[in-house]
Amino acid sequence: MPDQTDPLTSELWATAHAMADAARTETLRHFRVAGLVSDNKLASGFDPVTEADRAAERAMRAVLAERRPEDGILGEEFESSQGTSGLTWVIDPIDGTRGYISGTPTWGVLIAVGDGDRVQLGIVDQPYIGERFCGGFGEAWVDGPMGRAPLRSRPCAGLSDAVLFSTFPEVGSEAERRGFEAVRDRVRLTRYGMDCYAYALVAAGQVDLVIEAGLHAYDVQGPIGVIEAAGGIVTDWQGGPALNGGRIVAAGSVEVHAEALELLSRAI
Amino acid sequence: MPDQTDPLTSELWATAHAMADAARTETLRHFRVAGLVSDNKLASGFDPVTEADRAAERAMRAVLAERRPEDGILGEEFESSQGTSGLTWVIDPIDGTRGYISGTPTWGVLIAVGDGDRVQLGIVDQPYIGERFCGGFGEAWVDGPMGRAPLRSRPCAGLSDAVLFSTFPEVGSEAERRGFEAVRDRVRLTRYGMDCYAYALVAAGQVDLVIEAGLHAYDVQGPIGVIEAAGGIVTDWQGGPALNGGRIVAAGSVEVHAEALELLSRAI
Repeated sequence: MPDQTDPLTSELWATAHAMADAARTETLRHFRVAGLVSDNKLASGFDPVTEADRAAERAMRAVLAERRPEDGILGEEFESSQGTSGLTWVIDPIDGTRGYISGTPTWGVLIAVGDGDRVQLGIVDQPYIGERFCGGFGEAWVDGPMGRAPLRSRPCAGLSDAVLFSTFPEVGSEAERRGFEAVRDRVRLTRYGMDCYAYALVAAGQVDLVIEAGLHAYDVQGPIGVIEAAGGIVTDWQGGPALNGGRIVAAGSVEVHAEALELLSRAI
Repeated sequence: MPDQTDPLTSELWATAHAMADAARTETLRHFRVAGLVSDNKLASGFDPVTEADRAAERAMRAVLAERRPEDGILGEEFESSQGTSGLTWVIDPIDGTRGYISGTPTWGVLIAVGDGDRVQLGIVDQPYIGERFCGGFGEAWVDGPMGRAPLRSRPCAGLSDAVLFSTFPEVGSEAERRGFEAVRDRVRLTRYGMDCYAYALVAAGQVDLVIEAGLHAYDVQGPIGVIEAAGGIVTDWQGGPALNGGRIVAAGSVEVHAEALELLSRAI
């Protein structure tokens, strides 16, 4: 679905997919291997999640070194580099490491590229399911077990109709938790535990709101790219830019976003 | 992996797989179609989850009518029938309807067959991922995106090493919630929101404990079949049989089960 007529757009998409493919291989190499240990370290002291995290980031950086050496990189595991092109890749090799070590299929590989003010392209990839949520340059779609489908966030009349997700019920500081709970007490349904997959579901028009706190830039930029391209909105709890992480509210529609924001901004 | 030398065993497995295949088709037909509505009813009043639930149970009953008309049936959606063979199928076409309507990949189709005292065979099927957890007659395995693998629950020295799952943080009655929280406060990691998928992860040796309350027979018998065949243990909070649902504790090892039970039985 990306516009193949613009060479930079095609190159950025091709690079992003090559990165996601490389990360799939590395993350799946260690997924569920630690089945017989309960402390995530094998008897040898080997820690599968740390190893997978680093190997996947190294693999993504190798793709960038080959295809886009002039771009900057901000990753979770290794040092940032500035770049000279004005574009920076923001990557999280395994978002949801606690989900990963528990064998769930809701962790993901997050990839974004932008100019510092805007995410131009974002990917949320779930390697085990083989599902890739993509958004950027005005297009959003998912490739998964049931083929390709466009992504479109859904309208929602207000909080009382909304489905809300958050990774933990214990959201952030006490003030942050109060903010979260003020929204939670007004929505139709609250669910937990989906890691980055919840953001993909906002883009897919299945979920209306995701509220979290304490996030990093690399936790949110991939989701921002996908959700914005699907018609949704992602800001901090004051309605400001969410690019640097922190307190995040992602919504499928402006109405439900505004209602959530009013409760959240009051709490902090 | 099932023992093909015993004709009844092979027939039960073949029947169970045919049921799971039929339910996959029906559940996926409506999964994520309601993307543009937030109340799960399309403008026409059509409710995709109810329709999928019923269609999947009808499809499974049709398989039984053809292959095992003499067996009893206990299903979520339609009336029970007694049967004359001494065997009863216990089926839940969509376990985790709230997950289903939110587009998550952690709801499942649950199938079990037993003689009333024991589950002989259980299946937890996740249609979207294309993953089927199977256990019975001394064998347990999963067929999924990465092929076939044996299932084996893992040892766990005690609660302080354990990973605990439950669908909601608000578990059951106040006394039940206290029991859950007594365990939660002792474990290494607690996660929510996985529906029946959490039980499959106990069988897969990824998770040590699942604790829930207020379940029905059809919510637990499929998981019991898989977990027991994988070496784990499922009882109620007093250590009694869990076949009829109610308060459930599923564990990968006897040590962690005993520790959890002590706290849970004290709370109620």
